Amino acid sequence: MSHNVIWHEHKVSRGERESLNGHKGCVIWFTGLSASGKSTIANIVEQKLYERGVRSYLLDGDNVRHGLNAGPDILEERHGAEFAKRFGLGFSAEDREENIRRVGAVAKLFCEAGVIALTAFISPYRRDRDAIRDTINDGDFIEVFIDTPIEICEQRDPKGLYKKVRAGQIKGFTGIDDPYEAPLRPELRLEGGKKDTDTLADEVISHLEETGVIPARSRRQKTREGMVEV
Amino acid sequence: MSHNVIWHEHKVSRGERESLNGHKGCVIWFTGLSASGKSTIANIVEQKLYERGVRSYLLDGDNVRHGLNAGPDILEERHGAEFAKRFGLGFSAEDREENIRRVGAVAKLFCEAGVIALTAFISPYRRDRDAIRDTINDGDFIEVFIDTPIEICEQRDPKGLYKKVRAGQIKGFTGIDDPYEAPLRPELRLEGGKKDTDTLADEVISHLEETGVIPARSRRQKTREGMVEV
Repeated sequence: MSHNVIWHEHKVSRGERESLNGHKGCVIWFTGLSASGKSTIANIVEQKLYERGVRSYLLDGDNVRHGLNAGPDILEERHGAEFAKRFGLGFSAEDREENIRRVGAVAKLFCEAGVIALTAFISPYRRDRDAIRDTINDGDFIEVFIDTPIEICEQRDPKGLYKKVRAGQIKGFTGIDDPYEAPLRPELRLEGGKKDTDTLADEVISHLEETGVIPARSRRQKTREGMVEV
Repeated sequence: MSHNVIWHEHKVSRGERESLNGHKGCVIWFTGLSASGKSTIANIVEQKLYERGVRSYLLDGDNVRHGLNAGPDILEERHGAEFAKRFGLGFSAEDREENIRRVGAVAKLFCEAGVIALTAFISPYRRDRDAIRDTINDGDFIEVFIDTPIEICEQRDPKGLYKKVRAGQIKGFTGIDDPYEAPLRPELRLEGGKKDTDTLADEVISHLEETGVIPARSRRQKTREGMVEV
């Protein structure tokens, strides 16, 4: 049975996964006000990575709200009322902290799987973001602050949330009557509102190239595409 | 700005991720008694998949216990005592249910990312496993019952847990004084203890080939490796 013992000892390492993929894993943590452009830019980055054959996955409200971080209403259906009350996440400060904590933990798993995890949550509190940074290896956590002035966010207001806040229908809204704590030393600061989203996504891609997370496009490729050599 | 609008509309689809990878995503849910061979077999399956260039990721106690499903002691350090009390997972029936629920939700995310998620947890209750099956698309959930007789598990006892149970040091242990509910219709049943772990892992790989999750090895490849054509 010595053959089995050898198998048992070997686990596929992160390095092996990364060399299979041809790029590294990391966590790109987007943070910014509601309507600052987090999801839009994250989706463009994903598309650009995909076109280069890079594996990524975006965690956002759409795919965690109904599963991992489901509220009591969703949990009650399958798990009963008591369970839902104990484990369903609401919108208290504590519940938001746990929401972000879990997203961070899952993003870390994707990173270890050799995938580039992107997250798009307001994540307004510095302490919560720093707690995630603490759990992730140096260099694997890339905090991207989308620094869009609140006036522009409010003008955009794609979900009509700022309107509701102004009408007094929503309380505790980030940037209005709840604080947004901007990152002090983000790996990247994007000037939302000043530049278009495609340009901002390119800044993220460039950062990944410069830090060696993904291979830079070779000169030859650039020339073939008709671009000037740099 | 019409260019941005187009970008915004397009999200990288699961199909695109799968075609980039050359295989599908799915969830392989191993279930069985303590020491039945879940982790060992899952690790061998991962190794075999890796050798074929297939992306997979194993969720087990090692990588979720300290992060996603951390207990109160771990959470207290970074988040304080009150938070830890509210969100730390213990070992009550309810806490175990939530533990498994979260693992299922994360496995689903990996599956949607085009990765083969493997999970190795005792997951003794049929209801909990079926709740996860319910949240995952037909065909994406592969329940693998490692049917190792408890006598063999107790003989192996790599962590000395059965010994502690017999000495009265552990209560509520699956298979002894807490029930293990075997799957009624698992996609795959592996005869742990009767066959060696490498053979059992091959049965999982064959199932993935037969159901089209991963491409079957071509006849030519098999011949080149000196194997008989089938």
